[in-house]
Amino acid sequence: MILEHVLLPVVAGREDAFEAAFAEAKGIIASMPGFRSLRLERCIERRSGYLLLVEWDTVEDHMVGFRESEEYLRWRALLHHFYDPFPTVEHYETVTTIGP
Amino acid sequence: MILEHVLLPVVAGREDAFEAAFAEAKGIIASMPGFRSLRLERCIERRSGYLLLVEWDTVEDHMVGFRESEEYLRWRALLHHFYDPFPTVEHYETVTTIGP
Repeated sequence: MILEHVLLPVVAGREDAFEAAFAEAKGIIASMPGFRSLRLERCIERRSGYLLLVEWDTVEDHMVGFRESEEYLRWRALLHHFYDPFPTVEHYETVTTIGP
Repeated sequence: MILEHVLLPVVAGREDAFEAAFAEAKGIIASMPGFRSLRLERCIERRSGYLLLVEWDTVEDHMVGFRESEEYLRWRALLHHFYDPFPTVEHYETVTTIGP
């Protein structure tokens, strides 16, 4: 299992529209092979800052299976126009955990 | 519940020592009132980049209960010398989730 991490800078004033679009888009990513879970979080200190965390079986499930799919074109059309600047995606592997 | 998010830039070459120190330090934070869970993650693309996610009941449990405690002094002594530059902590609240 790997964790996709991306900090999403949403254009100020478009937060509600972004959240509505994300509610539609999340079903797209959740239908992809290798998808395990996601959480979208909103920053308390910077209200236009969001955090997207997605668990995948492998990096390839995200970067090839999803990013090179037809479904990704729809995801991109729904969401990418909300971001400025365009965010950087990274992948993480777990070192240690405590709790649920 | 809120999520503490911090990207930890560990000095290159000190990753193993940092992980060993974190294994000792994690019990400190896990003992604090309001602590719910943590995960320490290591970046696949940038091997000296780590991500710490901690769930707390409230922002105050982290920023006052932990940061102003005696326990925090020991946490800081164990871990802060590994970071360059010093990281920025933010807090997030959940917008939506899918999966476990």
